[in-house]
This record gives sequence, C-alpha cells and structure tokens, in this order.
Amino acid sequence: MSENKSERVADNGLINRRKLLELGLGGASIAASSAVLGAEQGLQIPDWSKMPGPGPTAYGQPSPHANLQRLASTPEATYPGGGLSRTPLQHLQGIITPNSLHFERHHAGIPDIDPINHKLVINGMVRQPLVFAYEDLLRYPMVSKVYFIECSGNGNTNTRGVSGGSAQSIHGLVSCAEWTGIPLSSLLDEAGVLPEADWVAAVGADAASMGRSIPIAKAMDDVLVALYQNGEPVRPEQGYPMRLFVPGWEGNISVKWLTQVKLTKVPAQFRDETSKYTDLLPDRRARQFTFPMETKSLITSPSGEMTLPRPGLYKITGIAWSGSGSIRQVEVSADGGQSWADALIESEQWDKALARFSIPWQWEGGEAVLQSRATDSAGNVQQTRQAVIADRGTSAFYHNPGIQSWSVNLQGEVSNIAV
Amino acid sequence: MSENKSERVADNGLINRRKLLELGLGGASIAASSAVLGAEQGLQIPDWSKMPGPGPTAYGQPSPHANLQRLASTPEATYPGGGLSRTPLQHLQGIITPNSLHFERHHAGIPDIDPINHKLVINGMVRQPLVFAYEDLLRYPMVSKVYFIECSGNGNTNTRGVSGGSAQSIHGLVSCAEWTGIPLSSLLDEAGVLPEADWVAAVGADAASMGRSIPIAKAMDDVLVALYQNGEPVRPEQGYPMRLFVPGWEGNISVKWLTQVKLTKVPAQFRDETSKYTDLLPDRRARQFTFPMETKSLITSPSGEMTLPRPGLYKITGIAWSGSGSIRQVEVSADGGQSWADALIESEQWDKALARFSIPWQWEGGEAVLQSRATDSAGNVQQTRQAVIADRGTSAFYHNPGIQSWSVNLQGEVSNIAV
Repeated sequence: MSENKSERVADNGLINRRKLLELGLGGASIAASSAVLGAEQGLQIPDWSKMPGPGPTAYGQPSPHANLQRLASTPEATYPGGGLSRTPLQHLQGIITPNSLHFERHHAGIPDIDPINHKLVINGMVRQPLVFAYEDLLRYPMVSKVYFIECSGNGNTNTRGVSGGSAQSIHGLVSCAEWTGIPLSSLLDEAGVLPEADWVAAVGADAASMGRSIPIAKAMDDVLVALYQNGEPVRPEQGYPMRLFVPGWEGNISVKWLTQVKLTKVPAQFRDETSKYTDLLPDRRARQFTFPMETKSLITSPSGEMTLPRPGLYKITGIAWSGSGSIRQVEVSADGGQSWADALIESEQWDKALARFSIPWQWEGGEAVLQSRATDSAGNVQQTRQAVIADRGTSAFYHNPGIQSWSVNLQGEVSNIAV
Repeated sequence: MSENKSERVADNGLINRRKLLELGLGGASIAASSAVLGAEQGLQIPDWSKMPGPGPTAYGQPSPHANLQRLASTPEATYPGGGLSRTPLQHLQGIITPNSLHFERHHAGIPDIDPINHKLVINGMVRQPLVFAYEDLLRYPMVSKVYFIECSGNGNTNTRGVSGGSAQSIHGLVSCAEWTGIPLSSLLDEAGVLPEADWVAAVGADAASMGRSIPIAKAMDDVLVALYQNGEPVRPEQGYPMRLFVPGWEGNISVKWLTQVKLTKVPAQFRDETSKYTDLLPDRRARQFTFPMETKSLITSPSGEMTLPRPGLYKITGIAWSGSGSIRQVEVSADGGQSWADALIESEQWDKALARFSIPWQWEGGEAVLQSRATDSAGNVQQTRQAVIADRGTSAFYHNPGIQSWSVNLQGEVSNIAV
C-alpha cells in the first residue's frame, strides 16, 4: 500500500477522511488473479455453501458469532431496585441502536404492565381532565422521528477521573432509535390547558414512580407520548406501554411507564428534581432544571480495553450528539488535542439524533492520545474535560459531556485516561 | 365529541387529516375532575406500582403483551430449502422494522456463517483482483442510510385476485431499516474496474447461491456491501456477515451472504435472472431486468382479518414506498376509489425508504372499500390493480404494486377484496 504523507491532515497519523477510499488498506489480503470461490488454488468450500440451513423463524435472533450484549450493573444491597445496563457502543455502527441493546435504567426494577389495565390521566389546570386507555391512544395521529436519549449521569466516571473502562462501561447510557408517538400537545389541546398553567408534571406507574416537571413551552413543542420504538411497541425496560419522550433533554425526564400528566402553576419539586437530578456544585449549592444534554462525542473504536494488533491503517469511528440541534462537524485528534482534523460524517445529520463519524489513522507503533470534539448546528462546541470541571467541579455527577481521551501505548493497548 | 361534517375531505367518512387533533376521539373515556392515580374514586393501584420488578438483562426482549411475530411459510416437499417469513405490518408503526421482525427469504435455509472463514472476492475485469476478510472490511469508511427492501414477489396474491388474507400474509415481504456498509464503488475503485466492464455479477455463499447481474452505473452509484442492520451486525436471515444492498431494486438483487463480485462485459444470465425473477407475460415472452420496485402503498390498519368493534372514529394508517425516490403524497379512499383525500405523512420522507401515513375516518356502520394511492418524488403514481393486470397479466408473479382494497361490511369485518 502506497502512503502519501502529503495527505496527513493532523499530527500523529490522521489522514484525510476521503483518502482511505483511494489508498486501499494495509493488511487486506491480495489474491492472485483469477481467484474464484471454489476448490481452485486450495480454497475450501465451506459447509454452509454445500448444505441447506434451518428455515424461517417467528422472531429473529442475531448470529451467535455476533454476540453483542448490554453490560448490566451490579446490584447494590442498599438500593435493591436500582439497575441499569449499558449499550455496547464499541461494537455498533450507524446511528440506530437495536431495541435489544438500547440502554436501560430503572429504580424499582422493570414493571410488567398489562396495557389493558394501564391508564394515562391528564388533569390539573385543564378545562376537562381526561383518562385514556391504551387502545384509545392508538387511534391518534402520530409522529415518527429518530432521536437519541442519554441518561444524565452518563460518563460521570470520565469527569471524576476514574481510571480504566471501555466505551460501554463509561458512556454506554446513550442510545438512538426511531420513536413514534402522539405529540403531547395534541392531548393537552384536547384537555384544554388553562392560561395559568406554566408547568407539566409527568409521573410514572412503576413502584419508584419517577416524577419530573417540564416547562409548558417544551411540553407543547416536540414532546411525545411514545408508544413505539424502532417500529414495535416500546420495550418493557424502555417504558412499555408508553413513555414520555422529551427530545434532547436529560433521559430521566422522558418518564417511563407514563401514567399521569398534570398541568400546574409551579414545578412539583418531586424527589427526582430536588434530591436527585440536580447538579451539586463545590460550594454546596445545586443547579436545578439543567434540562438539555450538551454537545458531546465519543470515539467508539479504537477505545478502552481494545488492543491494536500491529502498526497499520485503522478506522477511528464514533458517535456525536447534541440536545440543542444536529451535529454540524466532528474533529479528531491523535495527539491529545494539540492538532485536529475534520472527520467524515457517515450518517445523516438529524436534529437531536446521533451522528456517526470516521477518519483513517495510520498508527506507526508510537504512543497516541485519541480524542474527538463535536460542534452542533447552533455552534456549541464540545467542552474539554477540564472545562467541565472548571464549570461545576467533580461532584455534580450529572452532565458529563467532556472530551473523552483514549491512550494508545507502544504495545497497542488502548485505555481510558483522564486528560 | 362534536363532529363537524364540513371537515369531510372525501366521501364515506374521511376527515381532514389535521382535524382529529381538534375533535377528540369517540370512545375515549372522560374522567370526572380531580381524578388522580390512586385509591380515590375506586381506582385500584395496580401491582406493578407497588412492587419492584426484575432487574436489567444483557439482551432485551419485547413485552409478553406485545406478541408480534413473523408469519413463516409452510415447507413445500418439492422445494425443501425454500422458506420465508412475513413482517406483521398491521401491528407496526413508524417506518423502521425492528430486526427480529424484518422479513426473510431464502432458498436453501439460512447458512450459519462464521465470519472468520468467510471471504469477499472481487475479480473479473479488474486491474487487481482482491480478497477481503471480514475484519478488513470493518476498517473502511461506511455509509448509513434508512432504506426499504421488498421481495419482488410481494403481493402477488393481490394481482392474482386470491381471496382472504391480511396485510402481513399478502404484503408482508417488505421491511425498512438503517443499513450501514461500504459503498461498493470504494471496493471497485480499489480493484480498478477496466473500461470494458459493463456489468457486475454478485454471488451468495449459501447452498442455493443467489446470482444476479447489475449494470455498472447502478453498482457505482448507491450500492453497498452492508454489514450492519439497525446498528448491529446483519442478521443471519438477512445475510450475516454481509449482503449486497441495492437501494430501491428487487429484493433478490441485494444478494445475501455475499461472497463474490465479478466485473463482466455482459450479464452472467444466472438461473436467478432467467428461469426466476423474470416477469412472464401472457404471450409467453418474459421481461428481464425489471429492476426498480414500483411506487406502492398499503393501508395496514384497518386491514384484512380485523373487525371494527363499533361505529366511530378510527385512524386509517399505512406505509408507502418507491424504488425511484421518496414519497411525495399519499391519498386514501373509503369508497373504492371514487373519491380521494390527502393523508397526513407522519414520518420523514426519505429517498427509497418507507413513509408512514394516516387519516381519520368516521365509520358510521355502512359498507366501505378502503384504498391508498401513493405518488413519489418523480411523479410516479401507484397503479390500480387493473392497470397492473392490463400491463402484464396475472402470471408475471413479480412486481405487484397495484392498489390494495379492503372491504368493510355491516358487521365491521374487514377483508381483502380484488377490485
């Protein structure tokens, strides 16, 4: 493979994002001419080419050779209902997270809700309180959009400088799917919101019963009562039979197992927006209602706990997202932020959805620190980890958009470092 | 619920697609004021609100209350390897088909391919033949797009006027997903296509070994070597570890379990483009290489084998697609095509992807014939069933885009009829 040093776009090996298409790959096997599938030249015909396999199934499963799994949390004795599982970001491509690998988070396990007995109540400061059965809601016009959702605590070990970990274990509480549901504004219009109502309180039906308050302007904007996730009914761990979906905002605000929406004058000041989901500052005050998730990106490969087998050409790839718009640009550095190059955006760039980026990288065997930095459509640039710490310290726990750094050592081992 | 007859947009009950947002639904329960979740007014607190549920899992599953399944074909003694399963279109929403419900089609069962031993060969009229291992391909820049894929035989019972059936059993060989892969043009450029090559022959590694020839212009345009389906590796029944993906064209051309791409001067004239996948005309000649799938739509609900429980307001919903562009418009009729109204498009309108539509319908208990008609971005209008028959008879078997009619009788029973 010939390599043109004039195509370097940043230091320590980063190559023009379009150059890979011309170079060919170091390491790809080159066949002699006339190689064809078959017995010629010693090629074996594999069994699967000679004998039929099993027939169709009612509900498909992945190949056993593609054994992707979520990583579940260890149960805590003092918080028995609390659990989560993290998406294997380092093994995914594109931007959609398949339903079975979508991250989950719950505080009293996952309720098994029979939709026949589930109700959605809209009450409070409305002209006419309403109660909906699941079947009623299915008749409403719906909206379908691809959106990310990120747990507000995602990535807190990066901010806190905890060593070790993988893309999954550090940042795996982010996923992206097609969400289909009824605009909340449709249902609120039907109930008739009274002019004195400024907030909407949303409550969940599980035993932990999440409660969050949302300003009326957002509630009437793009919030959905979501019933479908990538085309099929919402999964139990993502809120079956219905969840609120609040695009771009903290994941907890998208209340799962939604059962009540109450119009109020002031925020309800639930437990989940006072003792939890507030950002504790070093001076012991806390920020409340820090709603949107920030502009953020993450290199998913090469990433922590991986090993590069040998020097050569690699694809650096990852995801980027913003709670305030679409992704305009992603830059990558291989020298810990000293020099940056534009990455190729492989996916569409949709509002409040993940975007997929990649850039070729020639690893010559030396040390490197890999980073990515996103800019969104509103011009927000992803903060460095130090900027996040300067803004709120290391005990805020929520909102961890700081740049993630992966170090590569002389043996090709990739690990998480706090820069 | 007050009903404004001046909002009728077509005969037999169709209502302005935006009106539903204002009307409220006939049949929705109306609560007395101050109803809240709890013991007041006799409401029972369900068990799932009182007790924690189970914790996280490594690979999620749907709720047992949402028991969606593909419908598998019955094995045929004379064609033991041939099988398929159909997507439950009448139960899905949005436009993404979740991977486990994506339709499947195979001719020697599903091969269990270990990617370690799978090769992709590019040979024929190229400067340098190449052989790729799976790991090599993962390093290439990829493209991610949402595309439909439709089996070319989908809906043939509609053209042939076979009675009975559901949306799933008649038209369930269409699905839509995010497909992520390497542009075939990247790999062909690396091999170096010789000027005399006009066609690309693609071959599969399963025991039936699909073979299809593709004109070089299409191959260099938007064809992918697809490795990921909705973010995770392609499913075995959809071609794991890699398939060709040919946007908008007959499903079979997206060769599964892809193992060879050979550049040729003329079409290979494989079995799969001569004795199969050609359209037999009444005069016994056959059309060959009828590549794009036509502009088509389908009402998925109400649809065959459903029953409307009582007169009232219903949501007519369905999907539309075109192999030649995006969906510009969908119209719906409740009187067998005598009058038409514009439906609301609920999803985005992406090139060669499904679009989701809906329109409210006031069923007053009388007979009705429900139809939908799509127009794509190039101005192609979906053909009537009679127009399809006039063009190619009823024995062509492939390419069945004709308008689907669902009759509703006085008991509310919905069934397939051939109009």
